[in-house]
Amino acid sequence: MTQTPLDAPGATERTRVRRLPDKAVNDRSVLHAVLDAGLVAHVAVVDDGQPYVVPVAYARRGDDVLFHGSTGSRLFRLLELGQPTCLTVTLVDGLVLARSAFESSINYRSAMVLGTARRLTGDDELDALRVISEHLLPGRWADARQPSRKERAATMTLALDLAEASVKIGEGGPSDDPADLEDDDLMLLWAGHVPMVEVFSEPVPDDLCPPGTPVPEYVRGWSRS
Amino acid sequence: MTQTPLDAPGATERTRVRRLPDKAVNDRSVLHAVLDAGLVAHVAVVDDGQPYVVPVAYARRGDDVLFHGSTGSRLFRLLELGQPTCLTVTLVDGLVLARSAFESSINYRSAMVLGTARRLTGDDELDALRVISEHLLPGRWADARQPSRKERAATMTLALDLAEASVKIGEGGPSDDPADLEDDDLMLLWAGHVPMVEVFSEPVPDDLCPPGTPVPEYVRGWSRS
Repeated sequence: MTQTPLDAPGATERTRVRRLPDKAVNDRSVLHAVLDAGLVAHVAVVDDGQPYVVPVAYARRGDDVLFHGSTGSRLFRLLELGQPTCLTVTLVDGLVLARSAFESSINYRSAMVLGTARRLTGDDELDALRVISEHLLPGRWADARQPSRKERAATMTLALDLAEASVKIGEGGPSDDPADLEDDDLMLLWAGHVPMVEVFSEPVPDDLCPPGTPVPEYVRGWSRS
Repeated sequence: MTQTPLDAPGATERTRVRRLPDKAVNDRSVLHAVLDAGLVAHVAVVDDGQPYVVPVAYARRGDDVLFHGSTGSRLFRLLELGQPTCLTVTLVDGLVLARSAFESSINYRSAMVLGTARRLTGDDELDALRVISEHLLPGRWADARQPSRKERAATMTLALDLAEASVKIGEGGPSDDPADLEDDDLMLLWAGHVPMVEVFSEPVPDDLCPPGTPVPEYVRGWSRS
Protein backbone atom coordinates (compact mmCIF):
# COMPACT_ATOMS: atom_id res chain seq x y z
CA MET A 1 0.00 0.00 0.00
CA THR A 2 1.66 3.16 -1.22
CA GLN A 3 0.60 6.63 -0.20
CA THR A 4 1.24 9.46 -2.63
CA PRO A 5 0.04 13.06 -2.46
CA LEU A 6 -2.72 12.07 -4.88
CA ASP A 7 -3.91 9.23 -2.70
CA ALA A 8 -6.86 9.51 -0.42
CA PRO A 9 -6.93 8.47 3.24
CA GLY A 10 -6.69 4.72 3.48
CA ALA A 11 -6.09 4.53 -0.25
CA THR A 12 -4.85 1.30 -1.77
CA GLU A 13 -4.26 0.31 -5.35
CA ARG A 14 -8.01 -0.38 -5.57
CA THR A 15 -9.24 2.93 -4.23
CA ARG A 16 -6.55 5.15 -5.69
CA VAL A 17 -8.41 7.63 -7.83
CA ARG A 18 -7.45 6.98 -11.42
CA ARG A 19 -9.60 9.64 -13.05
CA LEU A 20 -9.61 13.30 -12.10
CA PRO A 21 -6.77 12.94 -9.59
CA ASP A 22 -7.04 16.68 -8.90
CA LYS A 23 -10.29 15.88 -7.12
CA ALA A 24 -8.81 13.30 -4.76
CA VAL A 25 -8.12 14.38 -1.22
CA ASN A 26 -5.46 13.01 1.08
CA ASP A 27 -6.68 13.77 4.56
CA ARG A 28 -8.44 11.48 7.00
CA SER A 29 -10.23 14.41 8.63
CA VAL A 30 -11.81 15.20 5.25
CA LEU A 31 -12.97 11.59 4.90
CA HIS A 32 -14.55 11.83 8.35
CA ALA A 33 -16.14 15.19 7.56
CA VAL A 34 -17.77 13.91 4.36
CA LEU A 35 -19.12 10.84 6.12
CA ASP A 36 -20.37 12.99 8.99
CA ALA A 37 -22.21 15.33 6.62
CA GLY A 38 -24.29 12.66 4.85
CA LEU A 39 -27.49 10.94 5.91
CA VAL A 40 -27.81 8.15 3.34
CA ALA A 41 -25.11 5.86 1.96
CA HIS A 42 -25.33 3.52 -1.04
CA VAL A 43 -24.10 0.00 -0.34
CA ALA A 44 -23.29 -2.71 -2.88
CA VAL A 45 -24.44 -6.30 -2.51
CA VAL A 46 -23.84 -8.92 -5.19
CA ASP A 47 -26.34 -11.76 -5.43
CA ASP A 48 -25.61 -14.49 -7.97
CA GLY A 49 -23.58 -12.11 -10.14
CA GLN A 50 -26.13 -9.31 -10.04
CA PRO A 51 -25.03 -6.25 -8.07
CA TYR A 52 -27.56 -4.22 -6.09
CA VAL A 53 -27.03 -0.69 -4.82
CA VAL A 54 -29.07 -0.18 -1.68
CA PRO A 55 -29.63 3.12 0.14
CA VAL A 56 -29.08 2.90 3.91
CA ALA A 57 -29.06 5.25 6.85
CA TYR A 58 -25.62 5.21 8.42
CA ALA A 59 -23.25 6.94 10.80
CA ARG A 60 -19.53 7.05 11.46
CA ARG A 61 -18.15 5.83 14.81
CA GLY A 62 -14.41 6.39 14.94
CA ASP A 63 -12.94 4.57 11.98
CA ASP A 64 -16.05 2.51 11.25
CA VAL A 65 -19.12 3.24 9.19
CA LEU A 66 -22.21 1.72 10.80
CA PHE A 67 -25.50 0.85 9.12
CA HIS A 68 -28.45 -1.37 9.87
CA GLY A 69 -31.21 -3.26 8.18
CA SER A 70 -33.65 -6.09 8.70
CA THR A 71 -32.39 -9.53 9.73
CA GLY A 72 -34.93 -10.76 7.17
CA SER A 73 -33.25 -8.91 4.32
CA ARG A 74 -31.64 -11.25 1.81
CA LEU A 75 -29.12 -8.58 0.86
CA PHE A 76 -28.12 -7.89 4.48
CA ARG A 77 -27.70 -11.63 5.07
CA LEU A 78 -25.29 -11.74 2.13
CA LEU A 79 -23.26 -8.89 3.63
CA GLU A 80 -23.23 -10.67 7.00
CA LEU A 81 -21.68 -13.71 5.29
CA GLY A 82 -18.62 -11.58 4.55
CA GLN A 83 -19.00 -10.71 0.90
CA PRO A 84 -16.77 -7.81 -0.25
CA THR A 85 -18.78 -4.60 -0.38
CA CYS A 86 -18.50 -0.91 -1.18
CA LEU A 87 -20.24 1.91 0.64
CA THR A 88 -20.41 5.32 -1.02
CA VAL A 89 -21.69 8.62 0.37
CA THR A 90 -22.18 11.49 -2.07
CA LEU A 91 -23.19 15.04 -1.22
CA VAL A 92 -24.25 17.33 -4.06
CA ASP A 93 -23.01 20.87 -3.44
CA GLY A 94 -23.93 22.70 -6.62
CA LEU A 95 -23.79 22.99 -10.37
CA VAL A 96 -20.83 24.21 -12.41
CA LEU A 97 -21.41 26.15 -15.63
CA ALA A 98 -18.30 26.15 -17.79
CA ARG A 99 -18.01 27.83 -21.20
CA SER A 100 -18.17 24.35 -22.74
CA ALA A 101 -20.68 21.58 -22.16
CA PHE A 102 -17.77 19.18 -21.64
CA GLU A 103 -16.28 21.04 -18.67
CA SER A 104 -19.63 21.74 -17.01
CA SER A 105 -20.22 19.52 -14.01
CA ILE A 106 -21.58 19.01 -10.53
CA ASN A 107 -19.83 20.10 -7.36
CA TYR A 108 -19.85 17.24 -4.87
CA ARG A 109 -18.14 15.51 -2.01
CA SER A 110 -17.98 11.73 -2.24
CA ALA A 111 -16.49 9.11 0.07
CA MET A 112 -16.03 5.48 -1.00
CA VAL A 113 -15.24 2.69 1.46
CA LEU A 114 -14.26 -0.84 0.41
CA GLY A 115 -14.16 -3.85 2.67
CA THR A 116 -16.11 -6.58 4.38
CA ALA A 117 -18.80 -5.72 6.87
CA ARG A 118 -18.91 -7.35 10.29
CA ARG A 119 -22.06 -7.81 12.35
CA LEU A 120 -22.21 -6.12 15.72
CA THR A 121 -23.81 -7.70 18.78
CA GLY A 122 -24.81 -6.99 22.37
CA ASP A 123 -23.97 -3.67 23.98
CA ASP A 124 -21.71 -2.80 21.07
CA GLU A 125 -24.66 -3.09 18.72
CA LEU A 126 -26.88 -1.04 21.03
CA ASP A 127 -24.24 1.68 21.11
CA ALA A 128 -24.07 1.55 17.31
CA LEU A 129 -27.85 1.98 17.09
CA ARG A 130 -27.55 5.00 19.38
CA VAL A 131 -24.77 6.47 17.24
CA ILE A 132 -26.81 6.03 14.05
CA SER A 133 -29.89 7.56 15.70
CA GLU A 134 -27.90 10.48 17.08
CA HIS A 135 -26.30 11.10 13.70
CA LEU A 136 -29.66 11.28 11.94
CA LEU A 137 -31.77 12.76 14.74
CA PRO A 138 -29.39 14.49 17.17
CA GLY A 139 -30.84 14.64 20.67
CA ARG A 140 -33.69 12.20 20.05
CA TRP A 141 -32.25 8.95 21.45
CA ALA A 142 -32.71 9.91 25.11
CA ASP A 143 -36.35 10.90 24.53
CA ALA A 144 -37.50 8.04 22.33
CA ARG A 145 -38.47 4.57 23.53
CA GLN A 146 -35.39 2.38 23.40
CA PRO A 147 -35.31 -0.74 21.18
CA SER A 148 -37.16 -3.73 22.62
CA ARG A 149 -35.79 -7.26 22.60
CA LYS A 150 -38.07 -8.08 19.68
CA GLU A 151 -36.95 -5.01 17.73
CA ARG A 152 -33.31 -5.81 18.45
CA ALA A 153 -33.85 -9.35 17.12
CA ALA A 154 -35.29 -7.94 13.89
CA THR A 155 -32.31 -5.63 13.35
CA MET A 156 -28.93 -6.41 11.84
CA THR A 157 -26.24 -3.82 12.51
CA LEU A 158 -23.12 -3.92 10.38
CA ALA A 159 -19.78 -2.10 10.62
CA LEU A 160 -17.35 -1.43 7.80
CA ASP A 161 -13.94 -0.08 8.75
CA LEU A 162 -12.31 2.80 6.94
CA ALA A 163 -8.99 1.04 6.26
CA GLU A 164 -9.61 1.19 2.52
CA ALA A 165 -11.32 4.44 1.61
CA SER A 166 -11.08 7.41 -0.71
CA VAL A 167 -12.58 10.86 -1.01
CA LYS A 168 -13.22 12.98 -4.07
CA ILE A 169 -14.27 16.60 -3.93
CA GLY A 170 -15.26 18.93 -6.74
CA GLU A 171 -15.76 22.53 -5.68
CA GLY A 172 -15.71 26.09 -6.92
CA GLY A 173 -16.04 27.28 -10.48
CA PRO A 174 -15.26 25.68 -13.83
CA SER A 175 -11.86 24.62 -15.20
CA ASP A 176 -12.34 25.70 -18.77
CA ASP A 177 -10.39 24.60 -21.79
CA PRO A 178 -7.69 27.29 -22.25
CA ALA A 179 -8.76 27.79 -25.88
CA ASP A 180 -12.28 28.72 -24.73
CA LEU A 181 -10.83 31.47 -22.55
CA GLU A 182 -9.33 33.05 -25.70
CA ASP A 183 -12.68 33.03 -27.50
CA ASP A 184 -14.15 36.54 -27.28
CA ASP A 185 -17.70 35.47 -28.06
CA LEU A 186 -17.63 32.63 -25.54
CA MET A 187 -16.23 34.95 -22.89
CA LEU A 188 -19.40 37.05 -23.08
CA LEU A 189 -21.22 34.05 -21.58
CA TRP A 190 -21.79 33.97 -17.83
CA ALA A 191 -19.82 31.15 -16.22
CA GLY A 192 -19.41 30.11 -12.64
CA HIS A 193 -21.17 27.88 -10.17
CA VAL A 194 -24.51 27.75 -8.41
CA PRO A 195 -24.27 26.38 -4.85
CA MET A 196 -27.00 24.13 -3.50
CA VAL A 197 -27.82 23.61 0.15
CA GLU A 198 -30.26 21.42 2.05
CA VAL A 199 -32.55 23.14 4.50
CA PHE A 200 -35.15 21.90 6.95
CA SER A 201 -38.73 23.08 6.63
CA GLU A 202 -41.05 23.62 9.58
CA PRO A 203 -41.53 20.38 11.62
CA VAL A 204 -44.90 18.69 11.00
CA PRO A 205 -46.50 17.01 14.05
CA ASP A 206 -48.39 13.80 13.38
CA ASP A 207 -52.16 13.60 13.93
CA LEU A 208 -51.75 11.85 17.29
CA CYS A 209 -49.62 14.60 18.77
CA PRO A 210 -51.75 16.54 21.31
CA PRO A 211 -52.17 20.14 20.11
CA GLY A 212 -49.60 22.40 21.70
CA THR A 213 -46.99 19.69 22.19
CA PRO A 214 -43.79 21.68 21.86
CA VAL A 215 -41.28 20.85 19.14
CA PRO A 216 -38.15 19.78 21.05
CA GLU A 217 -35.29 22.26 21.23
CA TYR A 218 -32.93 19.72 19.68
CA VAL A 219 -35.16 19.57 16.59
CA ARG A 220 -35.31 23.38 16.39
CA GLY A 221 -31.52 23.41 16.41
CA TRP A 222 -31.03 21.04 13.45
CA SER A 223 -29.38 22.41 10.36
CA ARG A 224 -27.76 20.95 7.27
CA SER A 225 -24.71 22.07 5.35
CA MET B 1 -42.64 -11.90 -14.55
CA THR B 2 -45.63 -11.39 -12.31
CA GLN B 3 -47.05 -8.00 -11.48
CA THR B 4 -48.90 -7.63 -8.20
CA PRO B 5 -50.17 -4.46 -6.56
CA LEU B 6 -47.04 -4.54 -4.40
CA ASP B 7 -44.74 -4.67 -7.37
CA ALA B 8 -43.04 -1.63 -8.74
CA PRO B 9 -42.97 -0.62 -12.41
CA GLY B 10 -40.87 -3.06 -14.35
CA ALA B 11 -40.63 -5.25 -11.27
CA THR B 12 -39.37 -8.80 -11.60
CA GLU B 13 -38.60 -11.42 -9.01
CA ARG B 14 -35.24 -9.68 -8.54
CA THR B 15 -36.53 -6.18 -8.01
CA ARG B 16 -39.74 -7.01 -6.16
CA VAL B 17 -39.44 -5.26 -2.84
CA ARG B 18 -39.21 -7.90 -0.15
CA ARG B 19 -38.88 -5.64 2.86
CA LEU B 20 -41.26 -2.80 3.67
CA PRO B 21 -43.64 -3.63 0.81
CA ASP B 22 -45.84 -0.73 1.93
CA LYS B 23 -43.13 1.53 0.59
CA ALA B 24 -43.08 0.04 -2.91
CA VAL B 25 -44.89 1.91 -5.62
CA ASN B 26 -46.51 0.43 -8.70
CA ASP B 27 -46.61 3.25 -11.17
CA ARG B 28 -44.26 3.96 -14.05
CA SER B 29 -44.96 7.69 -13.86
CA VAL B 30 -43.65 7.63 -10.28
CA LEU B 31 -40.49 5.85 -11.41
CA HIS B 32 -40.00 8.54 -14.07
CA ALA B 33 -40.68 11.34 -11.59
CA VAL B 34 -38.11 10.05 -9.09
CA LEU B 35 -35.47 9.69 -11.81
CA ASP B 36 -36.31 13.15 -13.14
CA ALA B 37 -35.93 14.72 -9.69
CA GLY B 38 -32.39 13.47 -9.00
CA LEU B 39 -29.04 14.79 -10.16
CA VAL B 40 -26.66 12.02 -9.12
CA ALA B 41 -27.10 8.23 -9.41
CA HIS B 42 -25.01 5.51 -7.81
CA VAL B 43 -23.93 2.79 -10.23
CA ALA B 44 -22.46 -0.62 -9.37
CA VAL B 45 -19.43 -2.06 -11.12
CA VAL B 46 -17.85 -5.35 -10.07
CA ASP B 47 -14.14 -5.78 -10.73
CA ASP B 48 -12.58 -9.13 -9.84
CA GLY B 49 -15.25 -9.83 -7.23
CA GLN B 50 -15.02 -6.40 -5.61
CA PRO B 51 -18.08 -4.20 -6.13
CA TYR B 52 -17.68 -0.44 -6.52
CA VAL B 53 -20.48 2.11 -6.11
CA VAL B 54 -19.73 5.11 -8.29
CA PRO B 55 -21.63 8.42 -8.30
CA VAL B 56 -22.55 9.64 -11.78
CA ALA B 57 -24.51 12.50 -13.31
CA TYR B 58 -27.40 11.08 -15.28
CA ALA B 59 -30.70 11.82 -16.98
CA ARG B 60 -33.74 9.91 -18.13
CA ARG B 61 -34.63 9.79 -21.84
CA GLY B 62 -37.89 7.93 -22.35
CA ASP B 63 -37.41 4.49 -20.82
CA ASP B 64 -33.62 4.74 -20.59
CA VAL B 65 -31.34 6.15 -17.94
CA LEU B 66 -28.31 7.80 -19.52
CA PHE B 67 -24.94 8.50 -17.88
CA HIS B 68 -21.44 9.19 -19.04
CA GLY B 69 -17.85 8.89 -17.96
CA SER B 70 -14.33 8.80 -19.28
CA THR B 71 -13.37 6.26 -21.93
CA GLY B 72 -10.21 5.86 -19.85
CA SER B 73 -12.17 4.75 -16.80
CA ARG B 74 -11.56 1.11 -15.93
CA LEU B 75 -14.99 0.86 -14.33
CA PHE B 76 -16.79 2.33 -17.33
CA ARG B 77 -14.93 -0.08 -19.63
CA LEU B 78 -16.22 -2.96 -17.50
CA LEU B 79 -19.78 -1.68 -17.88
CA GLU B 80 -19.28 -1.34 -21.62
CA LEU B 81 -18.34 -5.02 -21.77
CA GLY B 82 -21.87 -5.86 -20.67
CA GLN B 83 -21.52 -6.72 -17.02
CA PRO B 84 -24.81 -6.72 -15.08
CA THR B 85 -25.21 -3.48 -13.16
CA CYS B 86 -27.54 -1.61 -10.85
CA LEU B 87 -28.22 2.11 -10.88
CA THR B 88 -29.91 3.67 -7.85
CA VAL B 89 -31.17 7.22 -7.35
CA THR B 90 -32.14 8.28 -3.83
CA LEU B 91 -33.67 11.59 -2.79
CA VAL B 92 -33.77 12.42 0.91
CA ASP B 93 -36.99 14.25 1.77
CA GLY B 94 -36.87 14.53 5.53
CA LEU B 95 -36.53 12.94 8.94
CA VAL B 96 -39.21 10.98 10.78
CA LEU B 97 -39.42 11.15 14.56
CA ALA B 98 -41.46 8.26 15.92
CA ARG B 99 -42.14 7.61 19.61
CA SER B 100 -39.62 4.77 19.42
CA ALA B 101 -36.08 4.79 18.08
CA PHE B 102 -36.96 1.67 16.04
CA GLU B 103 -39.74 3.32 14.03
CA SER B 104 -37.85 6.57 13.47
CA SER B 105 -36.54 6.85 9.94
CA ILE B 106 -35.77 8.94 6.89
CA ASN B 107 -38.32 10.01 4.29
CA TYR B 108 -36.98 9.29 0.85
CA ARG B 109 -37.73 8.42 -2.75
CA SER B 110 -35.50 5.78 -4.28
CA ALA B 111 -35.45 4.21 -7.74
CA MET B 112 -33.40 1.10 -8.53
CA VAL B 113 -32.71 -0.08 -12.07
CA LEU B 114 -31.13 -3.45 -12.92
CA GLY B 115 -29.75 -4.44 -16.28
CA THR B 116 -26.86 -4.24 -18.68
CA ALA B 117 -25.72 -0.89 -20.03
CA ARG B 118 -25.21 -0.33 -23.74
CA ARG B 119 -22.83 2.21 -25.21
CA LEU B 120 -24.33 4.94 -27.37
CA THR B 121 -22.62 6.28 -30.49
CA GLY B 122 -22.90 8.98 -33.14
CA ASP B 123 -25.83 11.36 -33.19
CA ASP B 124 -27.64 9.22 -30.63
CA GLU B 125 -24.78 9.77 -28.21
CA LEU B 126 -24.71 13.50 -28.93
CA ASP B 127 -28.43 13.68 -28.21
CA ALA B 128 -27.85 11.78 -24.96
CA LEU B 129 -25.16 14.27 -23.94
CA ARG B 130 -27.61 17.07 -24.64
CA VAL B 131 -30.31 15.35 -22.56
CA ILE B 132 -27.93 14.89 -19.62
CA SER B 133 -26.76 18.51 -19.86
CA GLU B 134 -30.33 19.82 -20.08
CA HIS B 135 -31.36 17.69 -17.10
CA LEU B 136 -28.59 19.07 -14.91
CA LEU B 137 -28.33 22.59 -16.34
CA PRO B 138 -31.64 23.34 -18.10
CA GLY B 139 -31.20 25.91 -20.85
CA ARG B 140 -27.40 25.80 -20.93
CA TRP B 141 -26.75 23.46 -23.87
CA ALA B 142 -27.60 26.02 -26.55
CA ASP B 143 -25.30 28.64 -24.98
CA ALA B 144 -22.27 26.48 -24.17
CA ARG B 145 -19.63 25.38 -26.61
CA GLN B 146 -20.64 22.01 -28.02
CA PRO B 147 -18.42 18.94 -27.48
CA SER B 148 -15.40 18.79 -29.80
CA ARG B 149 -14.30 15.66 -31.61
CA LYS B 150 -11.54 15.19 -29.05
CA GLU B 151 -13.95 15.61 -26.13
CA ARG B 152 -16.39 13.18 -27.74
CA ALA B 153 -13.58 10.64 -28.11
CA ALA B 154 -12.80 10.96 -24.40
CA THR B 155 -16.43 10.38 -23.37
CA MET B 156 -18.30 7.12 -22.96
CA THR B 157 -22.08 7.45 -22.82
CA LEU B 158 -24.08 4.51 -21.54
CA ALA B 159 -27.81 3.75 -21.49
CA LEU B 160 -29.61 1.41 -19.13
CA ASP B 161 -33.23 0.64 -19.93
CA LEU B 162 -35.96 0.67 -17.31
CA ALA B 163 -37.32 -2.81 -18.08
CA GLU B 164 -36.31 -4.02 -14.63
CA ALA B 165 -36.84 -1.28 -12.08
CA SER B 166 -38.44 -0.55 -8.74
CA VAL B 167 -39.35 2.47 -6.65
CA LYS B 168 -39.62 2.84 -2.90
CA ILE B 169 -41.05 5.89 -1.21
CA GLY B 170 -41.24 6.73 2.48
CA GLU B 171 -43.24 9.86 3.25
CA GLY B 172 -45.25 11.58 5.94
CA GLY B 173 -45.13 10.92 9.66
CA PRO B 174 -44.18 7.89 11.74
CA SER B 175 -45.93 4.51 11.89
CA ASP B 176 -45.63 3.88 15.58
CA ASP B 177 -45.94 0.60 17.39
CA PRO B 178 -49.60 0.47 18.57
CA ALA B 179 -48.47 -0.19 22.14
CA ASP B 180 -46.51 3.07 22.15
CA LEU B 181 -49.68 4.97 21.26
CA GLU B 182 -51.28 3.65 24.47
CA ASP B 183 -48.37 4.86 26.59
CA ASP B 184 -49.42 8.15 28.23
CA ASP B 185 -45.88 9.28 29.02
CA LEU B 186 -44.63 8.52 25.53
CA MET B 187 -47.59 10.39 24.02
CA LEU B 188 -46.37 13.60 25.68
CA LEU B 189 -43.40 13.44 23.32
CA TRP B 190 -43.55 15.44 20.11
CA ALA B 191 -43.61 13.13 17.07
CA GLY B 192 -43.89 13.84 13.39
CA HIS B 193 -41.58 14.59 10.53
CA VAL B 194 -39.21 17.36 9.48
CA PRO B 195 -39.15 17.94 5.71
CA MET B 196 -35.90 18.77 3.97
CA VAL B 197 -35.56 20.60 0.69
CA GLU B 198 -32.66 21.53 -1.55
CA VAL B 199 -32.34 25.16 -2.53
CA PHE B 200 -30.00 27.05 -4.80
CA SER B 201 -27.89 29.86 -3.39
CA GLU B 202 -26.93 32.97 -5.34
CA PRO B 203 -24.93 32.10 -8.51
CA VAL B 204 -21.19 32.79 -8.17
CA PRO B 205 -19.43 34.06 -11.34
CA ASP B 206 -15.89 32.84 -11.87
CA ASP B 207 -12.95 35.24 -11.83
CA LEU B 208 -12.77 35.38 -15.60
CA CYS B 209 -16.36 36.54 -16.03
CA PRO B 210 -16.31 40.25 -17.01
CA PRO B 211 -17.98 42.32 -14.26
CA GLY B 212 -21.61 42.93 -15.07
CA THR B 213 -22.06 39.77 -17.16
CA PRO B 214 -25.71 38.97 -16.52
CA VAL B 215 -26.67 35.64 -14.93
CA PRO B 216 -28.76 33.90 -17.63
CA GLU B 217 -32.51 33.84 -17.13
CA TYR B 218 -32.54 30.04 -17.31
CA VAL B 219 -30.20 29.90 -14.30
CA ARG B 220 -32.38 32.38 -12.38
CA GLY B 221 -35.32 30.06 -13.03
CA TRP B 222 -33.75 26.92 -11.57
CA SER B 223 -35.33 25.39 -8.52
CA ARG B 224 -35.17 22.03 -6.77
CA SER B 225 -37.81 19.87 -5.12
